[in-house]
Amino acid sequence: MSRFFRSRYSNLIPYTPGEQPRNMEYIKLNTNESPFPPGESVVRAMEKAASRANLYNDPECTSLRRKAAELYGTGADNITCTNGSDEILYLAFSAFFDEAAFPDITYGFYKVYADVLGIKADIKPLREDFTIDVSDYTGIGKGIVIANPNAQTGIALPKSDIERIVASNQDSVVIVDEAYIDFGGESCVDLTKKYPNLLVTQTFSKSRSLAGARIGFGIGNEQLIADINTLRYSMNPYNVNTATQWAAEAAIEDNESYMANCAVIVENREYTSSRLRKLGFDVLPSSSNFIFAKSDRLDGGYIYEELKKKGVLVRHFTDERMKDHIRVTIGTREQMDIFIGKVEQLL
Amino acid sequence: MSRFFRSRYSNLIPYTPGEQPRNMEYIKLNTNESPFPPGESVVRAMEKAASRANLYNDPECTSLRRKAAELYGTGADNITCTNGSDEILYLAFSAFFDEAAFPDITYGFYKVYADVLGIKADIKPLREDFTIDVSDYTGIGKGIVIANPNAQTGIALPKSDIERIVASNQDSVVIVDEAYIDFGGESCVDLTKKYPNLLVTQTFSKSRSLAGARIGFGIGNEQLIADINTLRYSMNPYNVNTATQWAAEAAIEDNESYMANCAVIVENREYTSSRLRKLGFDVLPSSSNFIFAKSDRLDGGYIYEELKKKGVLVRHFTDERMKDHIRVTIGTREQMDIFIGKVEQLL
Repeated sequence: MSRFFRSRYSNLIPYTPGEQPRNMEYIKLNTNESPFPPGESVVRAMEKAASRANLYNDPECTSLRRKAAELYGTGADNITCTNGSDEILYLAFSAFFDEAAFPDITYGFYKVYADVLGIKADIKPLREDFTIDVSDYTGIGKGIVIANPNAQTGIALPKSDIERIVASNQDSVVIVDEAYIDFGGESCVDLTKKYPNLLVTQTFSKSRSLAGARIGFGIGNEQLIADINTLRYSMNPYNVNTATQWAAEAAIEDNESYMANCAVIVENREYTSSRLRKLGFDVLPSSSNFIFAKSDRLDGGYIYEELKKKGVLVRHFTDERMKDHIRVTIGTREQMDIFIGKVEQLL
Repeated sequence: MSRFFRSRYSNLIPYTPGEQPRNMEYIKLNTNESPFPPGESVVRAMEKAASRANLYNDPECTSLRRKAAELYGTGADNITCTNGSDEILYLAFSAFFDEAAFPDITYGFYKVYADVLGIKADIKPLREDFTIDVSDYTGIGKGIVIANPNAQTGIALPKSDIERIVASNQDSVVIVDEAYIDFGGESCVDLTKKYPNLLVTQTFSKSRSLAGARIGFGIGNEQLIADINTLRYSMNPYNVNTATQWAAEAAIEDNESYMANCAVIVENREYTSSRLRKLGFDVLPSSSNFIFAKSDRLDGGYIYEELKKKGVLVRHFTDERMKDHIRVTIGTREQMDIFIGKVEQLL
């Protein structure tokens, strides 16, 4: 740390991205990417965008928002586009939160955003079975962020539960982070029409094979979106570059293919969960593109380390409540068979 | 504004990007873009990146930083990569400034960053001739940001003047924004080795035809860079997508072509300035890819409006000290001849 760094940040602990080691080729089941590359139309869109990269991108993402509005069944003014959903989350925390409630086990960035922005974090432990206790969030009168399905656990709340939370906190903003919604959860996008305090965030990183292109969306009431845009235009209005705007448009036009990919992932998830259960694992019921599982014999850290030696990367969290588990991204059937084969070797 | 927007932002006036009208084809001389599309190697790099967009980009920009370090003659740890130079400026203001001094006429975003971040702005008027009075910045013991060459005016400070400012404020960070450095200014990158309080920012938007791909750099002492990365990893670590990282690498490898483009722009700038002077314009001595000019007969707003009707976009600022002027991006010789032809019609 330099002596110039502002004291407010001196204790800041940044987010730790999943490791991306380069020493050998791994089967990467650690960062919840899609195993399927984007389709040809996305590649062509990005190539076309490249040849006009000398011109600024459209800061309003006019054409992309129009297409996204069709996808989400909203108006274009109900949508703002960001550099991944990390950016919409950062902007929304900035815009609306003085204090924010969220689970102890969830996307690790919520705590980091709260810290960097000087927002008080009200951390609500998940139940013993890793589910969210909805009553922890009803009528609490403060900012709330819920990942649905939840990060790390993969467990989804039904829409009716989300609605209870949103309806009982109408004087503060509730963010529902739907990064993993396309693998089995119930989206709350249509509730944004009923509740002006609901902001839904989505990303094309997982379900539409665009993690490396960075595109996220905030969806909500026009006024919420306008506030976020006020901040976006005060930080980085050209946040989504042309190649990404055009890639996202192409992905929307080809939505059926990507939803078919998601169906394959769901199938592979159920297959993998069932295989692991037969090997004595406790696997949480996932509605996402990963599973969170605990062996009845082996320690989570041990499995992680040994699999890594064998060329398979999964994610392990050292926090007390998560250290027995591993989080495994669902890839192709082939990748999952290799993963299960290596686990069998360990047992 | 929604009732949820935090009161600290209620008076925030965001940055206004240059207009991008879509009602007709314009000759765009209003946003300081390069008229030259990126080279074939950049297009190929982005196409290649597109086909692996399902995987996350490298948040450390390892390979790009290595190449940029060769370009700038620094170590890779002296560089951080951002989503355009807007983002490095936002991060640096956040990291280092409680108060910041900068000119009244300069890049409009400095004031916006100060406002959104709650930083006190100490605005120092340029002299009557639009030059910076260096003594306004020596030994003032607060954060400083200087665009060199300066935005809007195009006038550059010699490196020795920048060094005086940096050397006399060793207890606070000085940012030198070199967005336009490749069109005739003297870069201060090598001074970052001598002064741990100097951060230089650069972008490939102007000189390397990548405005629409968004790549910026912060260059400075390892500790300054580490502090910025602490913030970057607390906001949006995946800020530069794969296509942009690879495009920027390709642009560095092909640096000579882009520098040749810059030489053409410089030639066209001198040509345009001389033609305008013959038409009675006062043209400031520019070291950038635009000129700031005032007619002895016509009002700046009038020229802007009339040129727009004739299909040529230039930029006009309504602030008292700038309203007589127009700012004209330097394009190809053909574009500049059309521009001058239209101006002649107005006179």
